[in-house]
Amino acid sequence: MRIDGGRSREDVHFDMLQASAAHSDSTILPLGEFDSWLTDRAQKQPYHVTPIPFAEMVGWHSDPDTGNLVHRTGRFFSVEGLDVQTDREWAGHWRQPIIVQPEVGVVGILMRRIGGVPHLLLQAKIEPGNINGIQLSPTVQATWSNYTGVHGGRDVPYLEHFLGPGRQPAVVDVLQSEQAAWYLHKRNRNMIIEAREPVEARDGFCWLTLGQVRRLLRRDHLINMDARTVLGCVPPPRSPARIEAGGSFLAQLRASMSGQGRSETPTDELLGWLTDIRSRRRLVQRPVPLRAVREYGWQWGANEIAHRDGKYFRVMAVHVEAGDREVRWWDQPLIAPAQPGVVALIVKPINGVLHALVQARLGAGAANVAELAPTVNCQPDNYADAPEAFRPPFLDEVLAADPQRIRYDVVLSEEGGRFYHACNRYVVIEAEPDFADAPGPYHRWLTLHQLSGLLRHYNYLNVELRSVLAGVHTLDDPGEC
Amino acid sequence: MRIDGGRSREDVHFDMLQASAAHSDSTILPLGEFDSWLTDRAQKQPYHVTPIPFAEMVGWHSDPDTGNLVHRTGRFFSVEGLDVQTDREWAGHWRQPIIVQPEVGVVGILMRRIGGVPHLLLQAKIEPGNINGIQLSPTVQATWSNYTGVHGGRDVPYLEHFLGPGRQPAVVDVLQSEQAAWYLHKRNRNMIIEAREPVEARDGFCWLTLGQVRRLLRRDHLINMDARTVLGCVPPPRSPARIEAGGSFLAQLRASMSGQGRSETPTDELLGWLTDIRSRRRLVQRPVPLRAVREYGWQWGANEIAHRDGKYFRVMAVHVEAGDREVRWWDQPLIAPAQPGVVALIVKPINGVLHALVQARLGAGAANVAELAPTVNCQPDNYADAPEAFRPPFLDEVLAADPQRIRYDVVLSEEGGRFYHACNRYVVIEAEPDFADAPGPYHRWLTLHQLSGLLRHYNYLNVELRSVLAGVHTLDDPGEC
Repeated sequence: MRIDGGRSREDVHFDMLQASAAHSDSTILPLGEFDSWLTDRAQKQPYHVTPIPFAEMVGWHSDPDTGNLVHRTGRFFSVEGLDVQTDREWAGHWRQPIIVQPEVGVVGILMRRIGGVPHLLLQAKIEPGNINGIQLSPTVQATWSNYTGVHGGRDVPYLEHFLGPGRQPAVVDVLQSEQAAWYLHKRNRNMIIEAREPVEARDGFCWLTLGQVRRLLRRDHLINMDARTVLGCVPPPRSPARIEAGGSFLAQLRASMSGQGRSETPTDELLGWLTDIRSRRRLVQRPVPLRAVREYGWQWGANEIAHRDGKYFRVMAVHVEAGDREVRWWDQPLIAPAQPGVVALIVKPINGVLHALVQARLGAGAANVAELAPTVNCQPDNYADAPEAFRPPFLDEVLAADPQRIRYDVVLSEEGGRFYHACNRYVVIEAEPDFADAPGPYHRWLTLHQLSGLLRHYNYLNVELRSVLAGVHTLDDPGEC
Repeated sequence: MRIDGGRSREDVHFDMLQASAAHSDSTILPLGEFDSWLTDRAQKQPYHVTPIPFAEMVGWHSDPDTGNLVHRTGRFFSVEGLDVQTDREWAGHWRQPIIVQPEVGVVGILMRRIGGVPHLLLQAKIEPGNINGIQLSPTVQATWSNYTGVHGGRDVPYLEHFLGPGRQPAVVDVLQSEQAAWYLHKRNRNMIIEAREPVEARDGFCWLTLGQVRRLLRRDHLINMDARTVLGCVPPPRSPARIEAGGSFLAQLRASMSGQGRSETPTDELLGWLTDIRSRRRLVQRPVPLRAVREYGWQWGANEIAHRDGKYFRVMAVHVEAGDREVRWWDQPLIAPAQPGVVALIVKPINGVLHALVQARLGAGAANVAELAPTVNCQPDNYADAPEAFRPPFLDEVLAADPQRIRYDVVLSEEGGRFYHACNRYVVIEAEPDFADAPGPYHRWLTLHQLSGLLRHYNYLNVELRSVLAGVHTLDDPGEC
């Protein structure tokens, strides 16, 4: 649809995002005042999380037939068992606990011009699994139960901007998957909506430019996973960039984001390669009672379900006390990974255009066998006893990377509403130009513009790749925060 | 990738398809000789299908714990139970038998220039559920078990062209879904591959141009479902067409196929609309034992599992004797629909460009809640007792359509390897220009070019929409067959 004198709505939205990104600070909440604002917020939200035995959880119980951990209302989520058969020759068949939440949640960021500059509305939010309590989340994180409940979502501030009948056309609006290792077929609706009327920041919310948010993305444990996945879906700049051999990293990056030059892997080849992996590789998922994971190495204690090898993750239960939420206390299960993960994207220039090395990665709970993932995306200790051929490719190169080639290196948390102290080291590494010219059957070199095109559709980029792309976008601004 | 003096591989493939489509007959197997060739084939393949009691099936049994119908090898497929919860107020929660086949099959057509004209290699194939025995199928219809088995697929003729290590780049290569009413999350890999070396048509195979195949698509029960879904993925012509108000149907059709003019529903709005439906509508699928569908109206006899209302479908068993197959006889379960379905696509010109009215349709076994489907896509009797508000929209208009406005009207079979005498009436109806300007929340007007763009990705167009699109393509050639 053409608006504003012949420009498409997409163009107008795109310009707004670019203008917002160009402002690396703002007078609304200057970065110099951000820390004290956040500390103040944290102090106003007293919050205590205590691990408890499963049997003490109020509202949750272990189903007598299956052992599944379920809420008495049948709402929220459940922890069930999954039997996974793959064609992998090492450890190719297993069972594991998995979170089942067949509803689609909304993660949405509201955008609004303030003083002519588009700002994003973020919320300082505490989640029980957060390693540091408070983090910046999207304007709205709502489950289906929230937004279709008896109150019609009136309890979720700002939800009407995203789902109301008279809402503005979306800047971003796409389903995306979540962690396939811990969730069965989970997906959320990622949205950015422009508000045309004045909107007040409620207590605990703040307006920041995209430029400010990108600077904050260089800090550990600050921008939460839900915010990062939405930010990862922001279309990158497409202003024409000049391509030259031996150009600067920034020139290569901009050429890659704006779709200049040629990709090493044309999109039809890319789609065919992924289709081939999705058809040849085997991933057969069978729901089983949670009880039935015992036969496969999971030990069930009063306080946790953990794997006898100490690998993967534990299922645990917590009691949460929250000072200022409407619900002042609750209990719930959480998934606690056995160790932090490594999420690394290796990039290099090919013909003057920066390319990223992505893999097609199988996931236990994946909706369609495999999605595109960062070059390395794993918990290294899970492979401690793996035969050499089954070590994650490029993991050793990432762990031994020359610090001077590391462009981005931040430890970030995963969803604190479901995962306990789950975090990954997100790294972007610039490789030598001749690195991995033939990267093997499960990796391909792609431009950032190609990845951006696939982000319009569900089920191509996994959540870690969207997160690290949000990190890559920060490299377009060499300033420090 | 640029080849042939700067033209992309995609362009070259596209031109081949167009050249093949332009030949509405061929000297290799002229249409005038086709019937006798097919009759000859049918006579050479004696084939008997006999319904038998479940208990008499050799190789298959009812699992003692679940009642699921499974093969003793665990291969092929199984018939299990599915519990489906939706937000529909009428008949919104049900259980049903469903086919579970978590592997990805290959349906592929080989293309090769013969005498300068690209031809497609099709196979005259008998399947146990076919209403008329023999139909034309793709070059290859192979299950994962076929192509990864101990023989490495050597038993499947021509498979090496599709999956071999040195195969040619694909003309079409995309995963697509199958019937969501009868299959859980089923998908196949749809392929067209160009053979560069001479290929001989084996006994039972024939070379036909795309133009010939399109003429045969106007006959009842001839081109099978697997062939139609691949043909539906063929990119439509994109030569510039002239758009004029009051232009001919053919001009409107060509403008729509080639992406001329504007769509009534811009693609970003279309994607947002589908995302909205996929997030707001509820579709919770829970595998249950087949035995557990009994509580929901399914009656289990010695010969069939059928619904007490006589609606939906029956599960049955057959004994098959095949004269010339390697396996000379086998038994298997089949799904037999209670009545033929109606698959109708209503089209109309908007600003000189033909638009098709598609719906976002929920399916019991859908991988992601809803896919795009034809305007009407149902078994009408399933709604015989439905309240007015739950009658399929536009069904009455389709059943009462003026014959002069019907552009395509053919009865075609669904997959005879799984379904017994399953068929749909496929209709394309040209509506008045002011028909359904506001088509309701679950329908949108789209151009054929838009649908073609979405066909590059999994999970947008359902199998009936791909089938009827193959029918729409025949309208570009007004000749009769």
